[in-house]
Amino acid sequence: MKSIYLLGATGSIGTQTLDILEKYKDLYRLVGVSLGIRNPKLNERIIEDFKPEVVCLRNESDLAYYESKYKNIKFVYGNDGLIKIATHSKKGLLINALMGSVGLEPTIAAIKSKKSVAIANKETLVMAGDLIMKLAKDYKVSILPVDSEHNAIFSCLQGEKIEDVLKITITASGGSFRDKDRDQLMNVTKEEALNHPNWKMGSKITIDSATMMNKGLEVIEAHHLFQLPYNQIKTVLHKESIVHGMVTFKDQSLKAVLGSSDMRMPILYALSYPNHLDLDIKPLDFDAIGQLTFKPMDFQRYPLLELAYQVGKKGGLYPTVMNAANEKAVELFLEGKIGFLDIERRVIEAVETFSENKENPTIEEILETNKKIYERVGS
Amino acid sequence: MKSIYLLGATGSIGTQTLDILEKYKDLYRLVGVSLGIRNPKLNERIIEDFKPEVVCLRNESDLAYYESKYKNIKFVYGNDGLIKIATHSKKGLLINALMGSVGLEPTIAAIKSKKSVAIANKETLVMAGDLIMKLAKDYKVSILPVDSEHNAIFSCLQGEKIEDVLKITITASGGSFRDKDRDQLMNVTKEEALNHPNWKMGSKITIDSATMMNKGLEVIEAHHLFQLPYNQIKTVLHKESIVHGMVTFKDQSLKAVLGSSDMRMPILYALSYPNHLDLDIKPLDFDAIGQLTFKPMDFQRYPLLELAYQVGKKGGLYPTVMNAANEKAVELFLEGKIGFLDIERRVIEAVETFSENKENPTIEEILETNKKIYERVGS
Repeated sequence: MKSIYLLGATGSIGTQTLDILEKYKDLYRLVGVSLGIRNPKLNERIIEDFKPEVVCLRNESDLAYYESKYKNIKFVYGNDGLIKIATHSKKGLLINALMGSVGLEPTIAAIKSKKSVAIANKETLVMAGDLIMKLAKDYKVSILPVDSEHNAIFSCLQGEKIEDVLKITITASGGSFRDKDRDQLMNVTKEEALNHPNWKMGSKITIDSATMMNKGLEVIEAHHLFQLPYNQIKTVLHKESIVHGMVTFKDQSLKAVLGSSDMRMPILYALSYPNHLDLDIKPLDFDAIGQLTFKPMDFQRYPLLELAYQVGKKGGLYPTVMNAANEKAVELFLEGKIGFLDIERRVIEAVETFSENKENPTIEEILETNKKIYERVGS
Repeated sequence: MKSIYLLGATGSIGTQTLDILEKYKDLYRLVGVSLGIRNPKLNERIIEDFKPEVVCLRNESDLAYYESKYKNIKFVYGNDGLIKIATHSKKGLLINALMGSVGLEPTIAAIKSKKSVAIANKETLVMAGDLIMKLAKDYKVSILPVDSEHNAIFSCLQGEKIEDVLKITITASGGSFRDKDRDQLMNVTKEEALNHPNWKMGSKITIDSATMMNKGLEVIEAHHLFQLPYNQIKTVLHKESIVHGMVTFKDQSLKAVLGSSDMRMPILYALSYPNHLDLDIKPLDFDAIGQLTFKPMDFQRYPLLELAYQVGKKGGLYPTVMNAANEKAVELFLEGKIGFLDIERRVIEAVETFSENKENPTIEEILETNKKIYERVGS
């Protein structure tokens, strides 16, 4: 029985993780969980169904209600509460399905309390990849990717040596606006942007797919996860989202992992690795698929991806700047305050005007920069 | 330095293996080799270049010439000579690139002298897969597939457990006549049949591709190599021959190995496994490929593939009957003595009229049946 700690249980990745945990209650025990505020009924269902030992609420004000209703469970709250979940027990796996930079500190706390971390929160690695990977090495824990692309590449690397790798390739669906050219992006709406052709995901990541910022964050994430230089990390447009990730070896053989667009597949593999467990999802049907198409990445069309490579190579605080600016700009777009192309403009401007880079920044410096840029882009 | 024994050095797989051995002379030493009769210049070049310890000639009559010219090398000849190569030293890897049933006995001899075998001679496993795999287990040696499809599946299985596999899928290009329907096959010529769209291979295997018998033999080969039942072995039409093999796991994730149509890739991997070494072949270029297409296998169009599944499931001597009948029928077709569709007819007839099956036949019984059917189909 493996102890599981799930942060962000009520988000898109979180609820799909709960689906898996529900199915495999004999293998995995949900010991700690953090809940959201939007769906109190879901919160109570999770508590009653999984009976975790410790539950983190978003707000202190909800504490009294839950504590009186569930007397055998320990309740904590807020960002401190996330750290308490992460450090609750010595063993097990923390699944970080939080959104945005709030995921950083709990990840570090989990590693320091010797938990492996299955990471769906890519911001953590983008902002502090060097630190996180070094910590994981020092504390001898694994960082397991939940993103479908990285999960696929991780799977391709099983039984292989990283020295034998020529390059890895992350596929990109192209997002909601892949059939539009840049001129047509002027007046697109939030609703159009949120209509992803292949994946049902949260709003932030759906917008990031449309701007290709998501692929940029993934390139930086891959750099840290697989410890490969940026010139060995490639992207390709693949509109079917069936091939998730590929690894090319020195002998020019290419290993790929394919699957339906269902996040439960990578979530389960992060849990069951190095094994594969039964999963009742739509099988890949080649007879129905017919063909898989590939197109070279278009960096002119998607300038934020180009920016991510530059920012990744510069390192230090630059990835944090890009990520924070993007987080705020997407928020403004989703609030209807700026246009779709303004997201790019704000992110590029934030990076171009940043002049306070530092090599090997501390967590404090990263979080401070994150906050500063977030506020600056919002003003 | 790994000792290599290469049987069938002057055939298509053999010469490509020599290319690899030439490039990696610091890693692999060609200790023993068997040569053909068609190209004496090539034979001498191989001897002079690799300076093997023992060389097997086809005919006794050539012995005197070679022995007087190369005094430091031991020469042997004929089928006995192949066995002498296979048993020459205790260690190393035997690459069996012989054509047809002549490859069976040397494989067994090599295993018994504790050599691992890289097998390009699929007839060996088709005829005696149960025996070979049991022997390999008893003598604790590996059987490494050189066929691109099996090599790809073997690579997909690295770091994985066979219990986690739902199914494996072998891709089929469809061969020379894939765009013709059965009515159009009546009067096709040998030259047309030998014109394979993707692969440059020997004549026998090119014809086997056109009849889909090759895929049938591969299905039986896969059954033995990976110890999977026939209902877990699938085929799919994939005209580009870029995806070579696939493995679907219990969680519906599918791992595939892709590569150019260049046999040096699987040959090198059989040598370098579990590592990948540099190979200077055309890289896979997705920008140029554009798309990969898949079509369900058409068992009506290719009755010999259906037959291979039936024959494989029946087991015993049936696969030997099918293989021997096919070997002879293809020979007759290449000699211009029968038409293309007669190959199928002769093979199906040989299997349907066979009534002397035996479970767990001995090598002697297999070879006897092989000879009997070969003669019967030829008469």
